[in-house]
Amino acid sequence: MTKASRRAERLVLFGADRPLRLESGRTLTDVPVVFERYGPPDPTGADTVFVCHALTGDAHVTRHRPDDAPGWWESMVGPGRPIDTDRFQVICANVLGGCSGTLGPAPLADRTTWVPFPQITVADMVAVHRELLRRLGVGRLHAVVGGSLGGMQALEWLLRHPQDARRYGLIATSAQLSTDNLAFNAIGRAAIRSDPRFRGGAYRAGEGPDAGLGIARMVGHLTYMSGESLQAKFDRDLAPVPHGAGTEADAARGPFSVERYLEHQADKLVARFDANSYLCLTNAMDLFDAFATPYEKVAGAEPDVHLFSFESDRLYGVEHSRHIMEQLDKVGVSCAHFHEETARGGHDAFLMDVDEYLAAVARWLAAPSHPNVPAPGSLSVQPRSSHDVDA
Amino acid sequence: MTKASRRAERLVLFGADRPLRLESGRTLTDVPVVFERYGPPDPTGADTVFVCHALTGDAHVTRHRPDDAPGWWESMVGPGRPIDTDRFQVICANVLGGCSGTLGPAPLADRTTWVPFPQITVADMVAVHRELLRRLGVGRLHAVVGGSLGGMQALEWLLRHPQDARRYGLIATSAQLSTDNLAFNAIGRAAIRSDPRFRGGAYRAGEGPDAGLGIARMVGHLTYMSGESLQAKFDRDLAPVPHGAGTEADAARGPFSVERYLEHQADKLVARFDANSYLCLTNAMDLFDAFATPYEKVAGAEPDVHLFSFESDRLYGVEHSRHIMEQLDKVGVSCAHFHEETARGGHDAFLMDVDEYLAAVARWLAAPSHPNVPAPGSLSVQPRSSHDVDA
Repeated sequence: MTKASRRAERLVLFGADRPLRLESGRTLTDVPVVFERYGPPDPTGADTVFVCHALTGDAHVTRHRPDDAPGWWESMVGPGRPIDTDRFQVICANVLGGCSGTLGPAPLADRTTWVPFPQITVADMVAVHRELLRRLGVGRLHAVVGGSLGGMQALEWLLRHPQDARRYGLIATSAQLSTDNLAFNAIGRAAIRSDPRFRGGAYRAGEGPDAGLGIARMVGHLTYMSGESLQAKFDRDLAPVPHGAGTEADAARGPFSVERYLEHQADKLVARFDANSYLCLTNAMDLFDAFATPYEKVAGAEPDVHLFSFESDRLYGVEHSRHIMEQLDKVGVSCAHFHEETARGGHDAFLMDVDEYLAAVARWLAAPSHPNVPAPGSLSVQPRSSHDVDA
Repeated sequence: MTKASRRAERLVLFGADRPLRLESGRTLTDVPVVFERYGPPDPTGADTVFVCHALTGDAHVTRHRPDDAPGWWESMVGPGRPIDTDRFQVICANVLGGCSGTLGPAPLADRTTWVPFPQITVADMVAVHRELLRRLGVGRLHAVVGGSLGGMQALEWLLRHPQDARRYGLIATSAQLSTDNLAFNAIGRAAIRSDPRFRGGAYRAGEGPDAGLGIARMVGHLTYMSGESLQAKFDRDLAPVPHGAGTEADAARGPFSVERYLEHQADKLVARFDANSYLCLTNAMDLFDAFATPYEKVAGAEPDVHLFSFESDRLYGVEHSRHIMEQLDKVGVSCAHFHEETARGGHDAFLMDVDEYLAAVARWLAAPSHPNVPAPGSLSVQPRSSHDVDA
């Protein structure tokens, strides 16, 4: 196989003869989808890994060339990385409802009259991914992998279309947000809503609720980190230009570095993300309830399901993965669970260089998918990792 | 002793001849202080418990009469309660920097030109409490007790003026906010600051940054509860008037009950609290660093220090109390630590009807303060509670 490099590609899917029927019952046609492909072309899909991205991610998973802008999952995807683009074709599409080219609630500059975007669901996102693969002619995939909202897509995909891939990798994700998760998302929504520039969603491009979206990001970002990693990174360090305890220079701005850091995270997101998309996608996450719909086993489809969770993840920690395991077990789907206990990165550990976790993903993707049907060239069944704490 | 009932009282302290010198070096004169007294008059202070209130608390700790508005600590303070107003005089003063009558950054209606309020500290709050007691002629207290910001005041008081009380009770508090604590406060500040009605603090009474203060409260409130209590209370219940999944009625408002609950908490605080006070007091908490100033032991003052913490407290949990114990130990102050492990109420458990915790406070306040000097009427030294996990 030859290595190929591609940039963002765009297709318009769901023509009038084949509309996208949303879970809500609404239909959409002529849906633009922007995606990226990496690694060797793989017309059959047998050596293709479809990556589902998280809330503020996009199709640019990794560099296509060394001088490319870095992708959001460089630690995981690339030549010689666990999702090895020397071996696998990797496809990632911007999700429906997002703001990176695939159809979403784009701000007013693009329309004469603002029309609220329909509330989409995780199932709708998956429907778009599947149609993209159909159009590309790709058959049964080697794997579908995603973390956080990406993991929800992978879980939804597994439950509704288990025959689509041999492996499903669900990383730092949830089948159903906890009340705590819902509450933190609710604060983000309230911040966006209360920003006068939000205008009920009908803001013009470049005139959106930056302050509200920034606050939403700060709240989200804190849930992505662990208290321990924040402490290690910033402690109680003062920012380079101190506010000065005991002065009234700016009561609304504290003197600590961590505050400047959160403001920086807010500014970075505001520069690249849209508030209506943020609402649309967080609502989809809130509404996600993977096991509310009955699962029907598909004969001949026995996917290899692997969960990965992190001890320090206070968003979708180990209890979320255990819940998924229990529910999968009830519907007769067995899975393995790699639970990383040493990384202190919190939820975002799934994006970080965590050796044992990356090695576990690499082993899982490289192992023969079914012990009774060894993959071509493999001599023996590899044992499961000793880190599979639940099985 | 006769039982007396009093309502809010007001004194103006710190005349020109005796100004309040703030930690920052600034001085304040003619400082109004509003306070409440409960229980039997106690001119000497030997049977007086001074209660320090938390961030959004006030001097109204409990009812004066049965038909009174309830206070914020009814579970703890009252006739027959652990801080027993049949036995003790209880005094609580609204803190400096607050918005309940004691001097603070009142909004513009009260002034012709807005002047930023000086940044005050926990030590400044304690200085006002001490001056109030001096004016009332009260001597050495039976106890100083407080939770959260109130506990910081009690800790500061203990370290700088150990001779002022025989007992110091530090409940669900911290000697020094963690980076995580600072970060959550920073988000509240950012929300207030970004509300256009904030006007750099120069808003008029009734025209303040309600939306921003509401967001700050939502963030704070989530840190006061535990994820488990949120789950038990709301789970994924939908609010009575459902938003309706799949409709675009209001993408900025989710359908879940917990979201309505947070909005309700925000509205309640906005109706009774001032944004500049919120900034002033959270800054004081952020800047608090109890052991940064050397402690000098006072001969003859060997206070009985008791810490109380809650397992489910994700704000100032057990690790904060352990840190206080370690630091007190280094400066030669011994203390006991009651760590409640079963209450799921989070930080706010300190305000709740948690039997073992309330019983532990009652035992501690009733026990003779010094084993070698039995209190009048007590026959034997009571052993420390079996729940004193650290000693």
